[in-house]
Amino acid sequence: MSAILLLSCPDQKGLVASISNFISENNGNIISLNEHVDLDEKMFFIRVQWETNNFEIENTELTVKFKPLAEKFNAKWRIEFTEHKSKLAIFVSKYNHALQEILWRNKLGEYNAEIACIISNHNDLENLANSYCIPFYCFSITDENKKLNEEKEIELLKNLEIDVIVLARYMQILSPEFVSQFPYKIINIHHSFLPAFMGGNPYKQAFIRGVKMIGATSHFVTNDLDEGPIIAQDIIRISHKDSVKDLVRKGRDLERLVLAKALHLHLEHRVLVQKGKTIVFE
Amino acid sequence: MSAILLLSCPDQKGLVASISNFISENNGNIISLNEHVDLDEKMFFIRVQWETNNFEIENTELTVKFKPLAEKFNAKWRIEFTEHKSKLAIFVSKYNHALQEILWRNKLGEYNAEIACIISNHNDLENLANSYCIPFYCFSITDENKKLNEEKEIELLKNLEIDVIVLARYMQILSPEFVSQFPYKIINIHHSFLPAFMGGNPYKQAFIRGVKMIGATSHFVTNDLDEGPIIAQDIIRISHKDSVKDLVRKGRDLERLVLAKALHLHLEHRVLVQKGKTIVFE
Amino acid sequence: MSAILLLSCPDQKGLVASISNFISENNGNIISLNEHVDLDEKMFFIRVQWETNNFEIENTELTVKFKPLAEKFNAKWRIEFTEHKSKLAIFVSKYNHALQEILWRNKLGEYNAEIACIISNHNDLENLANSYCIPFYCFSITDENKKLNEEKEIELLKNLEIDVIVLARYMQILSPEFVSQFPYKIINIHHSFLPAFMGGNPYKQAFIRGVKMIGATSHFVTNDLDEGPIIAQDIIRISHKDSVKDLVRKGRDLERLVLAKALHLHLEHRVLVQKGKTIVFE
Amino acid sequence: MSAILLLSCPDQKGLVASISNFISENNGNIISLNEHVDLDEKMFFIRVQWETNNFEIENTELTVKFKPLAEKFNAKWRIEFTEHKSKLAIFVSKYNHALQEILWRNKLGEYNAEIACIISNHNDLENLANSYCIPFYCFSITDENKKLNEEKEIELLKNLEIDVIVLARYMQILSPEFVSQFPYKIINIHHSFLPAFMGGNPYKQAFIRGVKMIGATSHFVTNDLDEGPIIAQDIIRISHKDSVKDLVRKGRDLERLVLAKALHLHLEHRVLVQKGKTIVFE
Repeated sequence: MSAILLLSCPDQKGLVASISNFISENNGNIISLNEHVDLDEKMFFIRVQWETNNFEIENTELTVKFKPLAEKFNAKWRIEFTEHKSKLAIFVSKYNHALQEILWRNKLGEYNAEIACIISNHNDLENLANSYCIPFYCFSITDENKKLNEEKEIELLKNLEIDVIVLARYMQILSPEFVSQFPYKIINIHHSFLPAFMGGNPYKQAFIRGVKMIGATSHFVTNDLDEGPIIAQDIIRISHKDSVKDLVRKGRDLERLVLAKALHLHLEHRVLVQKGKTIVFE
Repeated sequence: MSAILLLSCPDQKGLVASISNFISENNGNIISLNEHVDLDEKMFFIRVQWETNNFEIENTELTVKFKPLAEKFNAKWRIEFTEHKSKLAIFVSKYNHALQEILWRNKLGEYNAEIACIISNHNDLENLANSYCIPFYCFSITDENKKLNEEKEIELLKNLEIDVIVLARYMQILSPEFVSQFPYKIINIHHSFLPAFMGGNPYKQAFIRGVKMIGATSHFVTNDLDEGPIIAQDIIRISHKDSVKDLVRKGRDLERLVLAKALHLHLEHRVLVQKGKTIVFE
Repeated sequence: MSAILLLSCPDQKGLVASISNFISENNGNIISLNEHVDLDEKMFFIRVQWETNNFEIENTELTVKFKPLAEKFNAKWRIEFTEHKSKLAIFVSKYNHALQEILWRNKLGEYNAEIACIISNHNDLENLANSYCIPFYCFSITDENKKLNEEKEIELLKNLEIDVIVLARYMQILSPEFVSQFPYKIINIHHSFLPAFMGGNPYKQAFIRGVKMIGATSHFVTNDLDEGPIIAQDIIRISHKDSVKDLVRKGRDLERLVLAKALHLHLEHRVLVQKGKTIVFE
Repeated sequence: MSAILLLSCPDQKGLVASISNFISENNGNIISLNEHVDLDEKMFFIRVQWETNNFEIENTELTVKFKPLAEKFNAKWRIEFTEHKSKLAIFVSKYNHALQEILWRNKLGEYNAEIACIISNHNDLENLANSYCIPFYCFSITDENKKLNEEKEIELLKNLEIDVIVLARYMQILSPEFVSQFPYKIINIHHSFLPAFMGGNPYKQAFIRGVKMIGATSHFVTNDLDEGPIIAQDIIRISHKDSVKDLVRKGRDLERLVLAKALHLHLEHRVLVQKGKTIVFE
C-alpha cells in the first residue's frame, strides 16, 4: 500500500527537502519521485509516492497533518491512496471499440479501478455492459430533455461517488453545467491529432486535406470543445490508398490505445494540470 | 538507364494492358510498376519504370510516340529519364540545418540531382555554399524590391533550367506570380504537423497548446500558405519538460529528415498531385 | 466481387503485358496491381486484383484458363476470390488477449473470414469461445499423446476445410508432421522483435539485456522455431522503470496489433513467400 | 551554473530527504530531480541538479563535503558541473555520416562539449576534421602494431584529458586493455537493434532474415562485443523493396540520430550503469 502526493506551488528553495523530510520523519519509504520546475513560470510540480505500511500517520489523518506544510508553500495539492480503487463511469453511444478496450484492460487488472456504471444515449451497447455485469443506464438526449437528463446523470454519478468519467466515443456534447461538476475528472478521446481537425468528422477532414498520418488525442474535457489539456496523443501513417472507411478502421486502434493510455496515467495519478496544459509524470 | 512514366486519367478497362503492351512491344523491361485506382473519383494513376537499354524507341522520340495512347485515355502524363539529373535550386535564409542536410545527401549520391544554385535573402550561408562549390545568390527582399527581385530570381532559375526549387527554411513568402511559374516544382518544409499550427512560429504555438508531439510537413507550394499538397510528414514525442528552445532543437531533426525524404520521393518521380493531395508511389 | 492473382516467376519481358491482357481481353477491370522485381534474384512478383462482375471467365473456369500462361512463365501462382470467406482455426492456450482481438475484429467486419473453430490445450478460454458461438475443441497435449492428438487436430482441420491457422499465443510447439500439412498457412505471434530473443520468455530476456524497446513479430510457422518468414513487426519504447510485468502488459498491446495486422494482410492475399522471406503488397 | 549529482546505493529510508537537505541547507535550489527505486534489487538511483549561483559550498570543496553522506549510504556517486565542457575524442574510419552529425550538432551548441580530437585508422576524413579546425590523428592499425598504437592513443587521450570517446562507425575492435582505461566513457553506435544482428554486416544479416524494420543501438563499450549497456535504440520500417544498399542508406539516418541522442544524454549526465544495463533519466 502506498500514498501519492501531487503538489504544485511557486518555486522556492527547500521544497523537496521539506516534503521528503515530512515523509521520512514519519517513517515512510519513497518508492517513486518525479519533479518538474517550470523555469519560465517559476512553478514547482511534484509527484511523490511512498509506502504506507509502517508510515506513522494514518491515511485518514494524512491530509490534516500535511496541510500546514502545503499552506506554507501556497500549494495546490491532493493525496491519493493506492488502496482506493477509482470509481469509473464510462459514457458511450454506439461504437463499442473504446468501451471494449477499457473493459478488457480493467478485467486483466491493468487499472486500479472499478467500473461502476456505463451511461449511454443509446441502447446499442447494453448487452456488452451486461456481459461484464456492469450497470447500464440509458439517457436518450434531445434538445428538450438535455438539461433534465444531465441533472439525473449528475445525481447518479454523485450517488455512485464517481472519481473519473470516461467519454469512450460519446457522441453528445456535455453542457458547461455538467462539466463544471467534474473539473479535470472527465477524459475524452478525440479522433485526430489535435489541434488539427477539431470538431466533427475528423477522418473525413483528414482525408480531404491529404495528410500522411492520422492521430488520436485524449484530453480532459473543459468547456472549450476539443481544447482541454492534452494527456496523450499518438499517430499512425496512412497513404493515398486509404479511403475514409480505412481511416475509420485504422483510427479505431489509435483511439483505443490512446484513451487506454491516458486513463492509465490518470488512474495512477500521474497527471497534473497547469494553465490548460498537463504535466505527465510517466 | 530507365524511363519513368507518370500518368493519371479517368479509370477505364485495359489501361494497364495498353501501357504495358506499349512498353513490351518496343522491347522494354518493366522494373517497377505502381498503380492506384481511386474508386470514388473513378480515376486511375500509374507510375511505371522500364529499362531503356534495348528499348526500341529513342528517348527523344518517346514523348511523340506515346502521345496518341495518352490522348486516347484523356490523360495527364509526363515521362522522365534516369539519365537526366534534376537541377535544383535551394532557397534559404539564416538557418543552415536543412541546407546542410541536402548538400550532404547529394554529395553522398543519395539524390539523382545537381544543385545548380543556392538563393538567399541573407548572406549568412554563403560560406557553406562556397564550401560545396555551389553558386550563391543573395537577393535581399523588401516590400519595395520584392517584385523586381523575384523577377530576377525567375530569370536566373529559367536560365539555369531548374527542375526543382527547395525552400529549406526560406523565411520569405513567395508571390503568386513566382509560384505560378513553377507549378508543383517548389517543395517547402513547414515545422508542424499540418494542418495544425499553420503560419508563423509553430513551435511556440505547439508549446502553448501543450501537445505531446511535434511534427514537420513537406509539401508543394501553392498560393494558399501552408495548404499545398502534402508529400511527407513525421512527428516526435515531446513532454512538459521541453521548452520552446527544446522544441526548436528537436524539431530541426524532423525538418531535415522530412524535407530530405520528400525531396527523395520527388527526385525519383514518385509523387503525383490530384485535387490538392498527393499520390506517393513509395 | 473480384479475383486476386498472386504469381511469382523468373523475370522476363512482357509479364505485366501478358497478365493484364489476359484480364482486359476477358473484360476484367483491374482495381489494384502491385508488382516487385528482385533484380538480384531476377525474380518477378505480382498481385493483381480485378472486378469479376462482367468478367467473361467463370470463377470455376479461371484456373484452367489461366494455367497455360502461368506454365509459359514457369510461375508459382494461385487465384483467390473475394466471395470466399477464409475459414480460420485459432489455436490458444491460456492467454486471452490475442484471441479476443481477432474475435472482436472479425465481428466488426474487418476480416473477410469465418472463424470455424478455436482449438486449445486448456479449457480456460472455452467461455470466451462460447460467447462468440464458435466451436471450441480441447486437446490436452502430453509427450505421450502429442502425435495422436495432432492427428486428430489435422483431421478436424481438414474436415472443416480450414484455410488459415492462427496461433494466438498457443504455448505448444507444433510437430514437423503437423506443420507440413499447412505450408505457409499457419501464422504465429512471437513476443519479441525477431531474431532477437528467440525461444522462451522473451520479455524476461529483454529485461535482462536492458533493451530500450520491445517488439512483436508475426510470421509463418515453419519447422525452424521462430525462424519462419516474417509478415509484420512492431516495437514500443520501454525504460528502466519497466519491470518484467510491465513488459508483459505493454507487450500484450503489441502482440494483439501485430498479429491482427499480419492476419489482415494474409486474408487480403497480400503476402508472398520467397526464400524464407515475405513480399508484402500493402 | 549548476551541479549534478549522480548516485546509486542500496535502498533505505530517508535518502531523498538527506540529499535534498544537504542541498537546501547550503542554499542550493534544485532545478531537476529524477529518482528510481529498483524494488527487485532493492537499489536506489538518483540524479539531482541544483543551481550553484548562491550555493555555499565551492565546486572544489563539494566532493569533500558530500563524501561523508555518500559513505553513510554506501553509495557509488559522482558530481558534475555544467561549467565544465566535456572533452570529446571521436574515433572514425571511412564513413563520414556519424562524425558529420556530431560536428554539426556541437557547432550548433546542442552539446556542452569541446571536440578535442578526431582519431582514425584511415586518412579519409582528415579534410572534414580540418574544415572544423579539429586536430586529426591517424593511427593505421595492423595486427602487429595494434598494441603499440593503442598505447599511443591512450597517451594522447590522457594528455588531452578526454572525458568521452565516441566511436562514430570506427571499424576496429578496441582491445580489453584500451577499454579498461575508459570504463563507461566509450560510446559506440551499432547498426542493428541489438541483440539482433550482433557482429559484422548487420544490414546484410537483416536483409537475409527478411525483417520488416531495421534498427540502430548506441551503447557503452565493454569487452563483450556489442553487449555493453544500451543507452538508446531506434528503428525504421523497411520492406521487400529495399536492397542491402537501401538499408545502408536508410540506416545511416538512424545511426546518426541514435548516436547523437545517446551522446546528448551522456553529456547531460543522465545515464547510470547498473549490472550491464542503463538507467536513463530523461
